[in-house]
Amino acid sequence: MKKHNFYAGPCILSEYTIKNTADAVINFADMGLSILEISHRSKQFQAVVDEAVALVKELLEVPEGYSVLFLGGGASLQFAMAPMNFLNKKAAYLDTGVWANKAIKEAKLFGEVDVVASSKDKNYNYIPKDFESKVPADVDYFHYTSNNTIYGTEIRKDPDVPVRMICDMSSDIFSRPVDVAKYDLIYAGAQKNLAPSGVTICIVKDDALGHVDRVIPTMLKYKTHVDKGSMFNTPPVLPIYAALQTLKYYKSLGGLKEIEKMDIAKAEKLYDAIDNSKMFVATIPNKEDRSIMNVCFVMKPEYAELEKTFFDFATERGMVGIKGHRDVGGFRASLYNALPMESVEALVACMKEFEEIYAK
Amino acid sequence: MKKHNFYAGPCILSEYTIKNTADAVINFADMGLSILEISHRSKQFQAVVDEAVALVKELLEVPEGYSVLFLGGGASLQFAMAPMNFLNKKAAYLDTGVWANKAIKEAKLFGEVDVVASSKDKNYNYIPKDFESKVPADVDYFHYTSNNTIYGTEIRKDPDVPVRMICDMSSDIFSRPVDVAKYDLIYAGAQKNLAPSGVTICIVKDDALGHVDRVIPTMLKYKTHVDKGSMFNTPPVLPIYAALQTLKYYKSLGGLKEIEKMDIAKAEKLYDAIDNSKMFVATIPNKEDRSIMNVCFVMKPEYAELEKTFFDFATERGMVGIKGHRDVGGFRASLYNALPMESVEALVACMKEFEEIYAK
Repeated sequence: MKKHNFYAGPCILSEYTIKNTADAVINFADMGLSILEISHRSKQFQAVVDEAVALVKELLEVPEGYSVLFLGGGASLQFAMAPMNFLNKKAAYLDTGVWANKAIKEAKLFGEVDVVASSKDKNYNYIPKDFESKVPADVDYFHYTSNNTIYGTEIRKDPDVPVRMICDMSSDIFSRPVDVAKYDLIYAGAQKNLAPSGVTICIVKDDALGHVDRVIPTMLKYKTHVDKGSMFNTPPVLPIYAALQTLKYYKSLGGLKEIEKMDIAKAEKLYDAIDNSKMFVATIPNKEDRSIMNVCFVMKPEYAELEKTFFDFATERGMVGIKGHRDVGGFRASLYNALPMESVEALVACMKEFEEIYAK
Repeated sequence: MKKHNFYAGPCILSEYTIKNTADAVINFADMGLSILEISHRSKQFQAVVDEAVALVKELLEVPEGYSVLFLGGGASLQFAMAPMNFLNKKAAYLDTGVWANKAIKEAKLFGEVDVVASSKDKNYNYIPKDFESKVPADVDYFHYTSNNTIYGTEIRKDPDVPVRMICDMSSDIFSRPVDVAKYDLIYAGAQKNLAPSGVTICIVKDDALGHVDRVIPTMLKYKTHVDKGSMFNTPPVLPIYAALQTLKYYKSLGGLKEIEKMDIAKAEKLYDAIDNSKMFVATIPNKEDRSIMNVCFVMKPEYAELEKTFFDFATERGMVGIKGHRDVGGFRASLYNALPMESVEALVACMKEFEEIYAK
């Protein structure tokens, strides 16, 4: 049976990415060797890194003066690396959930943190209104999480604040154009819209580095990796190769504006089905706060006892990874870039079929 | 033409590892999904981690009270994490080359470092004699690098010192049995004898943790990863899967004692050919200091001008990755576990053929 992969991450990747990566595991760049066993210093792999960096710059229209890095350690390591490298005295953070809180916790180890707004009062089911106006002008930077996978909220517009920004775009990078010039740092664990887990992409403004006094271990300095083109130590070779395949695929689709249109169409299809359903309800009431990457929904109270029944019903029809996060419950369908509209249609059909059988 | 992969790392992996990993990129655990796109929280991947941990414990006979971790970031991150987590006042380090120096540099950020011995005077072409007797009893730990890929030296016996040890075993782990009970921490970038790059294995003594006062970012605390079974954040899924394949393969070979015999036989074959050659000479004079993982050799002075000629000659015959590191020059043949004796025989035959043509 055809599987529909709604995992929240690691998650579905394009067939192009998977096929080319599988081929490279057998024979990379006609070297007669596997991508698993070649030197990261080989000219063939250097070409992979160079092309991946160039494509990130092209797709996101990265301005001059920024470096694109491919690092190990995951976005969770960035929660600490960002303040280590950018926080002198005080930073402003937006609290939109678990991931924002993890970033806040690490930042507090290095300086003062001003949490300018929070949606904790309603279990993070909205984006705080007017948060932009609450960011003070005297902080080193403003940090936010653009997409909140657990709750299904998203900030889809680059905020206007009086200071430079750092953003965790782990779960929605490459789903829309971004005004990179507003940021000192964009970081993203690659295992949503880019690659398998094991690599983190960082887009860092070169002249924003070097302005803190603390001692920073070599591997935790962005400058180390900028100076060595992500080759200070052995980088995660296969995840970077897979990332390159995805980037080439995105270019072939016409770039991020085209991808954004497709992502919006997929999300609208599913939100419409939920909003017009007798049995299901979206967990994010404000339409403008809803994520186009992660669509969260629960059974209406009168059908609450059918949650497990629907989960099994959907699983039998090939839906994978639709269980909601334990902090929210219900269901979560992640519609990352590589998920085809066909999978959204299959889920919608499955919901309708279920309603026809079970709706009172 | 058959390639003989002598890369120093990332390096050759077993055919079993490569084939099974390639299969999993297409269809992992009969899920109908690629290993690249499945949740690290799926029961199928949890089973991978559990089996990999169990096999590391079995193969290395890890005693009770130790945890086996699979982390991102590379061994270079361990250079900082180790002192962050273990260095209170003073640590003793052995200086056997570039990698040892990188570890020393990071340790100095966190406390006093006593470099008990060094072989820098001869460009690290030997292991300092009696270094064990120079380790003071009042240090927090003794750190050493068991195998020095650049120079081709190796410490193949667990040292006897009056304190607990930390070892960077990146390039020779799983090449011999180890007395793990002597160590607080063993770490190893996996891209030699275990897996593709992107994952680092740590074997850490649980009750040795938590004895330093400094503030440590969450991701840089071993305790974080011990408590969450390497699942605090999204781990490098594919590299861990590949590591499991290698571990299963090692078990099928009969374990580390059998592997050690094979590694010694391969190294002896090549060192014998070099020692009996008219044109080549090993860079490590003392036989007991020679690495069985990385065999370094140069042209004798009277044949120095033929270095490039031999490199091209060998490349034409399928030898890959035999260029020596720039700090040593000449040639380096890395004979990691997965390299078959057939490749050593091919290199030896190639050297003999070259001598027959070019020796005076």
